[in-house]
Amino acid sequence: MAVAQRSGRERVPPHPDIETIGLQQVLEALVDPVRRGIVGELYASGRDMKCGTFDLPVSKSTATHHFHVLREAGLIRQYYVGTSRMNTLRRDEIEAAFPGLLRALLSPPAQG
Amino acid sequence: MAVAQRSGRERVPPHPDIETIGLQQVLEALVDPVRRGIVGELYASGRDMKCGTFDLPVSKSTATHHFHVLREAGLIRQYYVGTSRMNTLRRDEIEAAFPGLLRALLSPPAQG
Repeated sequence: MAVAQRSGRERVPPHPDIETIGLQQVLEALVDPVRRGIVGELYASGRDMKCGTFDLPVSKSTATHHFHVLREAGLIRQYYVGTSRMNTLRRDEIEAAFPGLLRALLSPPAQG
Repeated sequence: MAVAQRSGRERVPPHPDIETIGLQQVLEALVDPVRRGIVGELYASGRDMKCGTFDLPVSKSTATHHFHVLREAGLIRQYYVGTSRMNTLRRDEIEAAFPGLLRALLSPPAQG
């Protein structure tokens, strides 16, 4: 039904085009260790993950804020499956816009 | 003379071992666009540069603070030539500790 479809679309939050995102905004998102941890879990898992499945040392409302910042910085896409909000790392788009950035920031540190 | 030598050494500011620096500290240094600009000029020039030769949109005292943060984060070495404070990018050390980081953060953005 039309109403149900519109309602479904409205639950999907807006996502910026990656072309509108600058390195400054991406770095401001990723300088936060909790946000870098979220992106790191998505990067390492290679699959979409529900918000509730991340191991985060913050409250649920703070986590929601962090997901919002990551979405606004073009790093993740969010969508619903039933009542669960899923998160996708925009890996290929980020790699095209900022080559090597995810690997440099998210790979395990080199051993001394 | 011993006194002159000690005096000379005291003018050289302390530099941390790169092994003691974490990615978090490096990112906090480089998230600032003025500091990223300083490191970017050193990276692009491939040579040591005097503090006064950088094209920075901040006061001299603010610039001195930014150089201090970069030195403390293990990104630059500083030394004196006469009364000029010179800056060296610790390029090889950073590359060994954080592979690909400088290239990812300092290369010109990819064209869309």
